[in-house]
Amino acid sequence: MIVPEKTLKRDIIYNGRVLKYVVDTVDVNGKEAGREMVFHPGGVGVVAIDDEGFVCMVRQFRKPYEKAILEIPAGKIDPGEEPIVSAKRELTEETGYSANEFRSLGEFYPSVGYTNEIIHIFLATGLTKGESSPDEDEFVDIEKIHIDEIVSMIMSGDIKDGKTIAAIMKTQYIIERNFR
Amino acid sequence: MIVPEKTLKRDIIYNGRVLKYVVDTVDVNGKEAGREMVFHPGGVGVVAIDDEGFVCMVRQFRKPYEKAILEIPAGKIDPGEEPIVSAKRELTEETGYSANEFRSLGEFYPSVGYTNEIIHIFLATGLTKGESSPDEDEFVDIEKIHIDEIVSMIMSGDIKDGKTIAAIMKTQYIIERNFR
Repeated sequence: MIVPEKTLKRDIIYNGRVLKYVVDTVDVNGKEAGREMVFHPGGVGVVAIDDEGFVCMVRQFRKPYEKAILEIPAGKIDPGEEPIVSAKRELTEETGYSANEFRSLGEFYPSVGYTNEIIHIFLATGLTKGESSPDEDEFVDIEKIHIDEIVSMIMSGDIKDGKTIAAIMKTQYIIERNFR
Repeated sequence: MIVPEKTLKRDIIYNGRVLKYVVDTVDVNGKEAGREMVFHPGGVGVVAIDDEGFVCMVRQFRKPYEKAILEIPAGKIDPGEEPIVSAKRELTEETGYSANEFRSLGEFYPSVGYTNEIIHIFLATGLTKGESSPDEDEFVDIEKIHIDEIVSMIMSGDIKDGKTIAAIMKTQYIIERNFR
C-alpha cells in the first residue's frame, strides 16, 4: 500500500548558495515521522560523442569524496534556464565542445530518499571543438575515451558516478540497437 | 589540471538522524570557495531476479519528489554493518525475499557535487519468498516485473531512479553477454 506523506511542519534549516536543507514532520498513516531533505535547483549531464564513438569526459576533484572523479560534463541549471540551454552552456564551458544535435536521454533522480534534484541527461552529436571557459574555482581535465572503454570501466566498477553510469549505459543501448 | 581542495574551515550546520549537513570553506589553487555538502551513512540496492527474468521491484512514496517512485529494494547501511549484510537484510525486510547468491554490481555515487553517499549495488539470484517486515513508517508496494520491461521503462524515461537505472542496465548487460 502506497501512503502519501502529508507535511505537518517544515523547518528550513539552512538556505545555502546552492542547496536548501529542510526537515519535514510528516503524517504517515496517522503517525508522525521526520524527513531530512536537500532541495537542489536541478542539473544537467551531457554524453558528447563523436562519429568514431569517442566521448568527451571530464575529471575533477569532488570535495564530498575527497578525490578526483571521472564523469560526463555536467552542471547546475541557472534560475529560469531551460535544461537544454544549460546542457549546451555546460558542455561548451567545461570542454569547449559544441554540438549540432541534442537528444534527451531522460531524467535522473540521484537519491530519492533525501534529495529532490533532477538531472536532465542529453546525448550530443555532431561535435565541434572550441575554447573552454570553466568557472573561476573549477579545474577540470578533459579526456576523450571510447564508449566501449567507458562501458568496460562502468562494468568493472572503476566509474562510479551515477549520472555517468545511467547516461553511458543508455547511450550504449541506443547505439547497439539502432546504429551498429 | 586537477586541483585538490584543502579544507580551511568546516561548519556542521545540522546533525540529523540520517544526514549531516556541512559547509566547508576550501582553498582551491590559492582562492577561497564554499562547498555545501551532505554526509550520508551509505546505502544498498538489490536487483533480485528469478530464473525467468522477473525482478522484484518496490513502489513507495518519496517525500522529496512528493510522489510514489518505482525502484529496486534499497535501504541505509546500519552503523558498523557490512554492505552485503545490509543488502540481505533490506531485501528480506522490504520484500520478504531471500536469495541463495549475492554478487556485487559495484558502487554508485548519487550526486558527486554535494553528497558523499555510496550506494552498494548487488545482484541477487536463487530467490525464496518469505514474509516482509517493513519499518513502522515504511509503506511499500511490491511488483514483479520482467527485466526486459524494466529496461524499456528506463529507456522511455518512465523509470528515473538513479540506482535502479544503473543496477538494471548493468544486470541487463551481464545477462546479454554471459547467459543468453
